[in-house]
Amino acid sequence: MKPWGGRFLEPTDPQIEDFTASIEIDKRLFAYDIMGSIAYAEMLERIGILSEAERKKIVKALEEIKEEIETGRFKFSNELEDIHMHVERRLVEKIGETGNKLHTGRSRNEQISLDVRMFLKDELREIECELVRLMGSILEKAEKYKDLSMPGYTHMRKAQIVPFGHYMLSFYYMFKRDRERIKLAISQADAMPLGTGALAGSTIPIDREYLRERLGFSRLTENSMDTASDRDFVLDATYALSVLMVHLSRLSEDLIIFSTEEFSFFRLPDRLLTGSSLMPHKKNPDALELIRGRTARVISDLFSLLVLLKALPSTYNRDLQEDKEPLFHALSVAKSSISIMRLCIEGLEINREGIENALKTGYIEATELAEYLVLKGLPFREAHRLVGTIIKECDRRKISLKDLQINELKSFSSLFDEDVYEFMDPLMIVKKRMTYGGASYDGVVKQIEEERVYLSS
Amino acid sequence: MKPWGGRFLEPTDPQIEDFTASIEIDKRLFAYDIMGSIAYAEMLERIGILSEAERKKIVKALEEIKEEIETGRFKFSNELEDIHMHVERRLVEKIGETGNKLHTGRSRNEQISLDVRMFLKDELREIECELVRLMGSILEKAEKYKDLSMPGYTHMRKAQIVPFGHYMLSFYYMFKRDRERIKLAISQADAMPLGTGALAGSTIPIDREYLRERLGFSRLTENSMDTASDRDFVLDATYALSVLMVHLSRLSEDLIIFSTEEFSFFRLPDRLLTGSSLMPHKKNPDALELIRGRTARVISDLFSLLVLLKALPSTYNRDLQEDKEPLFHALSVAKSSISIMRLCIEGLEINREGIENALKTGYIEATELAEYLVLKGLPFREAHRLVGTIIKECDRRKISLKDLQINELKSFSSLFDEDVYEFMDPLMIVKKRMTYGGASYDGVVKQIEEERVYLSS
Amino acid sequence: MKPWGGRFLEPTDPQIEDFTASIEIDKRLFAYDIMGSIAYAEMLERIGILSEAERKKIVKALEEIKEEIETGRFKFSNELEDIHMHVERRLVEKIGETGNKLHTGRSRNEQISLDVRMFLKDELREIECELVRLMGSILEKAEKYKDLSMPGYTHMRKAQIVPFGHYMLSFYYMFKRDRERIKLAISQADAMPLGTGALAGSTIPIDREYLRERLGFSRLTENSMDTASDRDFVLDATYALSVLMVHLSRLSEDLIIFSTEEFSFFRLPDRLLTGSSLMPHKKNPDALELIRGRTARVISDLFSLLVLLKALPSTYNRDLQEDKEPLFHALSVAKSSISIMRLCIEGLEINREGIENALKTGYIEATELAEYLVLKGLPFREAHRLVGTIIKECDRRKISLKDLQINELKSFSSLFDEDVYEFMDPLMIVKKRMTYGGASYDGVVKQIEEERVYLSS
Amino acid sequence: MKPWGGRFLEPTDPQIEDFTASIEIDKRLFAYDIMGSIAYAEMLERIGILSEAERKKIVKALEEIKEEIETGRFKFSNELEDIHMHVERRLVEKIGETGNKLHTGRSRNEQISLDVRMFLKDELREIECELVRLMGSILEKAEKYKDLSMPGYTHMRKAQIVPFGHYMLSFYYMFKRDRERIKLAISQADAMPLGTGALAGSTIPIDREYLRERLGFSRLTENSMDTASDRDFVLDATYALSVLMVHLSRLSEDLIIFSTEEFSFFRLPDRLLTGSSLMPHKKNPDALELIRGRTARVISDLFSLLVLLKALPSTYNRDLQEDKEPLFHALSVAKSSISIMRLCIEGLEINREGIENALKTGYIEATELAEYLVLKGLPFREAHRLVGTIIKECDRRKISLKDLQINELKSFSSLFDEDVYEFMDPLMIVKKRMTYGGASYDGVVKQIEEERVYLSS
Repeated sequence: MKPWGGRFLEPTDPQIEDFTASIEIDKRLFAYDIMGSIAYAEMLERIGILSEAERKKIVKALEEIKEEIETGRFKFSNELEDIHMHVERRLVEKIGETGNKLHTGRSRNEQISLDVRMFLKDELREIECELVRLMGSILEKAEKYKDLSMPGYTHMRKAQIVPFGHYMLSFYYMFKRDRERIKLAISQADAMPLGTGALAGSTIPIDREYLRERLGFSRLTENSMDTASDRDFVLDATYALSVLMVHLSRLSEDLIIFSTEEFSFFRLPDRLLTGSSLMPHKKNPDALELIRGRTARVISDLFSLLVLLKALPSTYNRDLQEDKEPLFHALSVAKSSISIMRLCIEGLEINREGIENALKTGYIEATELAEYLVLKGLPFREAHRLVGTIIKECDRRKISLKDLQINELKSFSSLFDEDVYEFMDPLMIVKKRMTYGGASYDGVVKQIEEERVYLSS
Repeated sequence: MKPWGGRFLEPTDPQIEDFTASIEIDKRLFAYDIMGSIAYAEMLERIGILSEAERKKIVKALEEIKEEIETGRFKFSNELEDIHMHVERRLVEKIGETGNKLHTGRSRNEQISLDVRMFLKDELREIECELVRLMGSILEKAEKYKDLSMPGYTHMRKAQIVPFGHYMLSFYYMFKRDRERIKLAISQADAMPLGTGALAGSTIPIDREYLRERLGFSRLTENSMDTASDRDFVLDATYALSVLMVHLSRLSEDLIIFSTEEFSFFRLPDRLLTGSSLMPHKKNPDALELIRGRTARVISDLFSLLVLLKALPSTYNRDLQEDKEPLFHALSVAKSSISIMRLCIEGLEINREGIENALKTGYIEATELAEYLVLKGLPFREAHRLVGTIIKECDRRKISLKDLQINELKSFSSLFDEDVYEFMDPLMIVKKRMTYGGASYDGVVKQIEEERVYLSS
Repeated sequence: MKPWGGRFLEPTDPQIEDFTASIEIDKRLFAYDIMGSIAYAEMLERIGILSEAERKKIVKALEEIKEEIETGRFKFSNELEDIHMHVERRLVEKIGETGNKLHTGRSRNEQISLDVRMFLKDELREIECELVRLMGSILEKAEKYKDLSMPGYTHMRKAQIVPFGHYMLSFYYMFKRDRERIKLAISQADAMPLGTGALAGSTIPIDREYLRERLGFSRLTENSMDTASDRDFVLDATYALSVLMVHLSRLSEDLIIFSTEEFSFFRLPDRLLTGSSLMPHKKNPDALELIRGRTARVISDLFSLLVLLKALPSTYNRDLQEDKEPLFHALSVAKSSISIMRLCIEGLEINREGIENALKTGYIEATELAEYLVLKGLPFREAHRLVGTIIKECDRRKISLKDLQINELKSFSSLFDEDVYEFMDPLMIVKKRMTYGGASYDGVVKQIEEERVYLSS
Repeated sequence: MKPWGGRFLEPTDPQIEDFTASIEIDKRLFAYDIMGSIAYAEMLERIGILSEAERKKIVKALEEIKEEIETGRFKFSNELEDIHMHVERRLVEKIGETGNKLHTGRSRNEQISLDVRMFLKDELREIECELVRLMGSILEKAEKYKDLSMPGYTHMRKAQIVPFGHYMLSFYYMFKRDRERIKLAISQADAMPLGTGALAGSTIPIDREYLRERLGFSRLTENSMDTASDRDFVLDATYALSVLMVHLSRLSEDLIIFSTEEFSFFRLPDRLLTGSSLMPHKKNPDALELIRGRTARVISDLFSLLVLLKALPSTYNRDLQEDKEPLFHALSVAKSSISIMRLCIEGLEINREGIENALKTGYIEATELAEYLVLKGLPFREAHRLVGTIIKECDRRKISLKDLQINELKSFSSLFDEDVYEFMDPLMIVKKRMTYGGASYDGVVKQIEEERVYLSS
């Protein structure tokens, strides 16, 4: 008979057992489940439901069960549905009658909420650590090439000269926002649900405050009906990971494109590339492509959670069981993707020559040329048009802006003077930018310093 | 060294190996992979790349490998990435040199396309069978209660009387459309990809027509670059399953609500219900809730596939590896959900008394009363307003329409006559509906007969 | 010629103009765009690009343009693409040459970032206000019926007795979390982007700090390349609104079901319902259904944003233009849905009789009966089984638990005593619950008081 | 009073009116709504509900209303909810009493189903036409450059030589599958719903067969309850368009990348490009980026529809009103995107020199070199490794494969002979490929011919 089968007239259909069982998924939470049960037993002793001897017996048995699972000696079966029932049943097998007392005033609804919250806090903290390491690698790379400039792109066409370090920092700041979102997700998960029963609390005087402190939570959940089906903390975590993956996918896309033969800005070392079973010359950035591809699936994890919850009637419905696979998947993909991206950033080889060559074409100093004219007094919109016209002439003659002699420039506008060439010099351009957050060497160096402090704090 | 490692200067980083390996997922396709390789070996013999002896050696070894995998004696490792490399490497281990010939002119890009297409055709055919069984159960239930009427609902409020069989058929026709979509998905998958190489075909004169016939496909894929990254057949299948799941979720929702204590139309037997670990009286329709919840995840599977493919550059990119988990998940959930729904339909107990009581309240004959007035000559919109006014009076007096005496009715309109009561009789209403597809006993009986023929054809 | 057309050899194809124009969407932002331009003109004066007279001329003209748009006298055209170009072109029409200076060192990339950030901060603050009003209505309703108990449900089946106020508060706490998420989204948007140029900042010494203070932002964006394509603040807002809508959809679902004729717990007044064009008796909760339905679309808004951003190459790409419709839609739906839900909560009529009748059936006191036995010393799991067995007997005899005489109860277990009936009394059950967050009258009253303070702070 | 207001005790709250009104969206369907009403009036005459004179009066008035709407003289108001009520109310204004008869036995549920089905059939046919034109342009471009070869890519790295025409055809075949999906979606919409009432059909003997023929449908819907909420045809259309957009987004991505300065394979003419407000040199492929970006939103349209329908209770619920915006959006985006893509394909300038230069680097003939060795008798896997080793040597010496002298090659393997250089000649490679669907000139020419026939049939 099922532990809940008292009222049932016939046994559960085995197909239903297989269809509803979650043990294959939630067994991963066993350590948290047992941790929660140990604390619960201690609390039951405090309020007089268990004697000291009973509590000791229970705790000892739970610790043995934990070890059985850890060492692969525990037998799982769909018949017992989930990790909670498996642990309880084994407990009773081991210590008999006393084991039947553990579930007093407790529901699986709150147990699973507890397990996931504890698990999530740990996982997110690990992800935060991995992220901080990645952010550190970015700062290091930025610092190492702090005197290198490269073309910045918009619409995948050369736009303006930017320091390589500034480019690196543009991703750093995305990840900084991700870190804050992860911290928030941790704090959302940090509310202790035990003592809220299936949906109504209990007439048993559960000591929630003891459980909270014992299990390391910073606050209690506030309403038992809400607690039974609150998955906001799962959403917040999966959302934070989705945005993080979107950022990683953008960096992946850039690295894939910038390391093509055609761009030749970056190169990844062979140890981070894979080959083709058919084409002997291929070295492919598969890992980066997988980060990009898995982003699709993490976004979908979030989507499936929101859809799951939409229009769900009050409190617990079994649909909620389906929250775990998306969450577990998102956590696992995010963690490994961050780590792989760190390998890629650390291993990234910078092709100075390729990058510097790229600065020579594409009229990448056009904007600064227009700004030069503005500083000489020409209204910007006219300066823009004039530079456009000059480039049209360069297009025709297949030359670059710098190839134009001063007298040729003067024929377009008398505002041009010898100092104009300085405004077309990559190094000078990057130096002339003064505003906070602008693409300048000094700004980058200062921000690297500040962010090192942030990361180590 | 990796089988593709000739050009590489250093071994692959183990973290990259773990991150890019797909063997945990694609090993499920081993039987199809080996079937494809056997056919490929035969074809290589036909075009003179293999001798007969070599072909026999290869085929024999492949069959042994298949058995090794089936019996769990095969060793999988992330180092060898995927099922294709595992089989090839083992082949060479077993028969040496000759094994190195099998991959001639072949790419893993086309191999995985082949494997998934064959797998998908088989899986979808099984799902179609399950669906036909479910459709048969619905017809049977409809037939069994062909003389029972129930309230039809819109907006979750009683709307009009309908035969129970008509209600059942409303889902039948959804599933009929699903079946057609599944058939289409099968035909989409039914194009043979081998011989298209990595993206360009081959200078080896691969006999595609032989492979097509040997592997049971109805046509060849038309363009090697398209073939390398075409996943339309994966989309079509997942889409068909998504719509199917949406239909199952709607039926689940209905069954959950109609079997509440408050509605009491249906009851599910105990073997299909599950209990609560805390509340001794609970019997919950968890399986139906899981169908509903898993619908969220199957929709997300489709979503992740579309997002994966969006803006992917030409031909194969490693992102495509991420197509398998969503597809496998959708197939597995759909198959089990259909089967569980059939159990529920077969086991569904109909509470005649509850249903017939429900017909007595809620002014469910109001529309027919208005139609009565129309047939007596009143413009419909006025008839609607008049019946609304009469119901307002009933509301006030807390009586039902049928409780009104003929003289009371006449005080609202002289068009009322004794024959009006016939228009408020559930049985008569259902008989009076004549239009094809309308909620009438005769229509239902006729459609059940027709659809029996369809299902058995 | 286009304002950017200097280099172009031919005019833009009109189909391309129509396809790329965003003016139909972004004209909604005109007030913010002009506010930004006014501040920008002031800043340009401070750094010497504009004279005081020029600045005054520009500001005056911008204010006139604002009024032209507000009064519908402004002419929009796809040829001018977006709101920024429309305003600039009109400015030049009005004041000539000087107008050409306004765009100095400024890009539309930062302008649109500014406009959306300012707009979003305002919109989210309004939504927060609406939400606080809804939360207030919930507290009021909870307080008004603070002495009413109702059945709490899990799996849509009666579970345990809960105070109506406790039920109301379960939604209150969801909305409280939503409010916090909205506040966070506001703070995410609260970074000033001007001065970052197209992607690289500027050689013009833009005074970003002045702009920040003048436009009411709390901080500056940190990196010009990141700023150009950062849409995290759009994501954060849409995510917060998605979760809010999910909560509203759950409350809608409950209200729809609980106000069916079959449940009869609640009733909505006629002014909040709509009728049927065909069925004269229908009163349908269409507004609640639309909240539920629109939740689907707000979730999709979030997803379209995440998918838009996935794998987007560095900095600005025109794809980003597609961020506005989803955001605008989500804001508008959320705002109106909250407001409609408040009307529904305020108008909700409580059917005390219906609710109290519902407490009499369904063995809703079963859990407390088991807890009674636990307090008498029976291990919980056994108490659960025993109560299950007793209910099986009640099922057979079609009676309720309270109908059992004490001697009948004693025949199941000698632990039963006269005090057992107290444990089956709804009022007593709700009183016996002591734990924080449990379903008790006292707890509810205390929380209402606390949350009143929170809302008014 | 509302047309359905007979039973209501108070007027609808104006906020509810605004929230539930769909007229802003569904007024777009007016022509179909009126077409349906005209056919309906004719049918009502046939079954004796209307006299000939009444029918004529109604039809004339409906035609006038149509003209009023077309010419902008019709007044819309949220008070009248939707297009159906607007037309009916205006009809009664114009012809009094008789107008009240039109809605006999008819529900808005079936009306909206009819309107959308007719609208959708027309829209999809137009989209099919646009698609056929695009497919024609692709064939034309392929034909024009039938003697040009280019590098084919996998993982964004050069893979093998392919004819430009073959590359073009790879997208042609995607669109061919899309066309088939669109045709299917048309046939799904092609079932006539009128006569099914709100959910139950009617006691009025509606002549559905007459309506079907008159309105140009090929079959009737089969079940009135299913008809009321069947949106499978909306899903099928939006799905077909989603996959189409995914294909367009992939082509866009390719064109964006292949027309960068760095690749320089293609160039788009200035009329299809747009500029930057800040950077005078920029010419950006904004239209292609918008196709890519809007793909995100069309995918989300599909998802919002699936989520809308998930777990919706039986028959009509107001949630269904939210099906129109996603559908309308998807149709409109797909239509304009196809048309823009055709402009881009037609306008695409091919940089022969750039493409042919690209063939010289990247070891693009490596696979054929391995195949050469296979044809000389070396097992493929060894040939692969050997060529890899040779390339490693080329890497070291920074030369290409063709730079190796025959004696150098022979030092790697005695199998090499003078004929090896033929296997490294781009033209020869493309000629040597014989298999159907392979990347060969002959294959391409033959397929172009066949597909011209297909398109014109």
